[in-house]
Amino acid sequence: MKRKDVLALDRADPFSKKRKLFKLPKNKIYLDGNSLGVLPKASIARVKHLVEVEWGQDLITSWNKHGWWNLPQVIGDKIAKLIGAVPNSVVVADTISVNLFKVLSAAITMRPERKVVLSDSGNFPSDIYVAQGLSRFLTGKVDLKIVAPEQILEAISEDVAVVMLTETDYRSARRHDMQAITAKAHSVGALVIWDLAHSAGAVPVDVMVCDADFAVGCTYKYLNGGPGAQAFLFVNPRLQQSAVPALVGWWGHANPFAFSLDFVPADGVRRFQSGTQGMLNMVALDAAMDAWKGVSMERLYAKAVKQCEMFTELVENQCGEFGVSLYGEHNFHQRGSHVCLQHQHAYAVIQALISHGVVGDFRAPNLMRFGFTPLYTSYVDVFDAAQHLYEVLSKRLWNKKKFLTKQSVT
Amino acid sequence: MKRKDVLALDRADPFSKKRKLFKLPKNKIYLDGNSLGVLPKASIARVKHLVEVEWGQDLITSWNKHGWWNLPQVIGDKIAKLIGAVPNSVVVADTISVNLFKVLSAAITMRPERKVVLSDSGNFPSDIYVAQGLSRFLTGKVDLKIVAPEQILEAISEDVAVVMLTETDYRSARRHDMQAITAKAHSVGALVIWDLAHSAGAVPVDVMVCDADFAVGCTYKYLNGGPGAQAFLFVNPRLQQSAVPALVGWWGHANPFAFSLDFVPADGVRRFQSGTQGMLNMVALDAAMDAWKGVSMERLYAKAVKQCEMFTELVENQCGEFGVSLYGEHNFHQRGSHVCLQHQHAYAVIQALISHGVVGDFRAPNLMRFGFTPLYTSYVDVFDAAQHLYEVLSKRLWNKKKFLTKQSVT
Repeated sequence: MKRKDVLALDRADPFSKKRKLFKLPKNKIYLDGNSLGVLPKASIARVKHLVEVEWGQDLITSWNKHGWWNLPQVIGDKIAKLIGAVPNSVVVADTISVNLFKVLSAAITMRPERKVVLSDSGNFPSDIYVAQGLSRFLTGKVDLKIVAPEQILEAISEDVAVVMLTETDYRSARRHDMQAITAKAHSVGALVIWDLAHSAGAVPVDVMVCDADFAVGCTYKYLNGGPGAQAFLFVNPRLQQSAVPALVGWWGHANPFAFSLDFVPADGVRRFQSGTQGMLNMVALDAAMDAWKGVSMERLYAKAVKQCEMFTELVENQCGEFGVSLYGEHNFHQRGSHVCLQHQHAYAVIQALISHGVVGDFRAPNLMRFGFTPLYTSYVDVFDAAQHLYEVLSKRLWNKKKFLTKQSVT
Repeated sequence: MKRKDVLALDRADPFSKKRKLFKLPKNKIYLDGNSLGVLPKASIARVKHLVEVEWGQDLITSWNKHGWWNLPQVIGDKIAKLIGAVPNSVVVADTISVNLFKVLSAAITMRPERKVVLSDSGNFPSDIYVAQGLSRFLTGKVDLKIVAPEQILEAISEDVAVVMLTETDYRSARRHDMQAITAKAHSVGALVIWDLAHSAGAVPVDVMVCDADFAVGCTYKYLNGGPGAQAFLFVNPRLQQSAVPALVGWWGHANPFAFSLDFVPADGVRRFQSGTQGMLNMVALDAAMDAWKGVSMERLYAKAVKQCEMFTELVENQCGEFGVSLYGEHNFHQRGSHVCLQHQHAYAVIQALISHGVVGDFRAPNLMRFGFTPLYTSYVDVFDAAQHLYEVLSKRLWNKKKFLTKQSVT
């Protein structure tokens, strides 16, 4: 593979015009958009307007005048298009952990005669913590059962109240078969919650086709909503009138400005909101969603797969002898949009690579993770990143004191 | 009272230099800082830096490099100084409703043999909804009992697990006696949660002197953190190792980057964090807290009391004949930092007043609320607002078609 052929791929790439919508970091190849997506140019002006005009001048009237109050639904409908959801079934609010708590508590309530919440060891730890926190609180009413990802299908039995899984593994990039698992769960009367943190904006998912009950997901990774932007939450329309979370609040009230002392859940997914949302992050996310206009998730994913393949091939051909190997999913069409490599000195290697301008991240104990975000990642980025990795490994550039000590936060 | 005497008061006011730290809305007298505080000038530059440099260029490294990860504690310690809390006992995260859910669930777990959560009818409805949601979820394990504010002390009995109150009533401005109520609750073995939404930055409170168990509060009102900025949460140090909320997550884990599958609560108040926080709102709040350097809450409150007295006196003298009267707390030293007036056509009057440039807000069914935020509200603002109210009432300017229809959101 030659660099000039790779540049030709970029020239032919229909997504190359999308790249111009983003302010990419200078002198860096950023392969960490699956942790924090880059800055959309539209968000800069939108946040400035929010701060100086909406907050600074219009103040409290902005809740109506600038549509703050409805943004959770407005953005929710934009995200809905990327995950196969229908209008009015997605809302943006709070964090994934908080939203997961809401839908898990609602789901448990809907299966009072069952005790088991089923998850897998590939789930993101915070999701597991949410279930553990709820289980501890309910002392004996809920048992969390964790199996290996490949054992999920057979573990779905009639004592399961809720199956709670992350579709794309944050390390291995392995994807669950949403349709098969959801169908199996429904066949035994269980409900299913999907965490789409590493799926939304990365891979084609269709919550309606697979008839998912609930879903949650992240907006600051592939959706480029900005650091800590609010998470999203999907409730299948067939459950919207029966599901009520344990955690509610005035933003989920049928008539919030009546200020009555009785909670009456709003119709639809709006009842899954609770408190007032941070508008600085919310408008940055809203502007970021503009970049998705006209994007086919199938085509975008096809580019991601090609980038994952290219990177893997280059790494295997050039770096195999230096103790690096692919971790996780090898089947390209069953994987997410990132590649994990393992290396004995993964932490030092990734630090050396970052000092070379290639940003990936470290995941304990020995993984290097590279995210491909084809809305703005070019093919030549992928090619060059692999060359830098070769440099770092072949010249043992990571084997320096400054790269060998682990910091507290990576 | 003459306008020139009022201007003299402003010239002698030691807080007048603080006013310069804020970008005040043009051509308005803004008396709604108890709903959404104005824009601090420092927040403009801080948000711009966050967006363009921290997010735009440094991206994922900003969690360390720009201290994002520790901001919830850093800001928490700044807020602690305003409410009498010790360092490491306050954290900034999520919304009031979510935080209230966390501390209420923790408190209930600590009193498993008791069923009653006691609150009052002056509480903010969303707080009541949180308790109702939890009670509904726990089907029979928790009973919410709501009494009139003046009956709280006598209603605290040995079956009460948790007393959950808002110190300053969002309508009447009536303040509870935190010390007496907390002492009575402790004497019968109950825990106390204080909502300081209309207290923090408005009135002197001391959570350590009154030995409060938990507190939550708002940062976008008197603290000027920006629309929907994260709420705060206080846990008394003597409970920090025993209290665990039902809602947890990786930000509250003892070692979040180990990514282990077992939740181990962090030491101290940090365990009350759950998911990743929105940094755009967080840094705006952090910069806003600079305005509080050197501020004595006692002196600031003395100014607020003087402004409330002045406004009330002017309104009573000039507007009494037009059907307007004071609602709520008349004793100035037992009140919060806002004044509520009642009028049969409160909605239309407030709309007409807003069109005159005086911004207050409407609270159903017949209240007009005016917030005094003496960090930036001048005495002449108060004087002029009263004159405008006189204009609107005496000339019946509110009695126009455009002011008489109620919008969905006020």
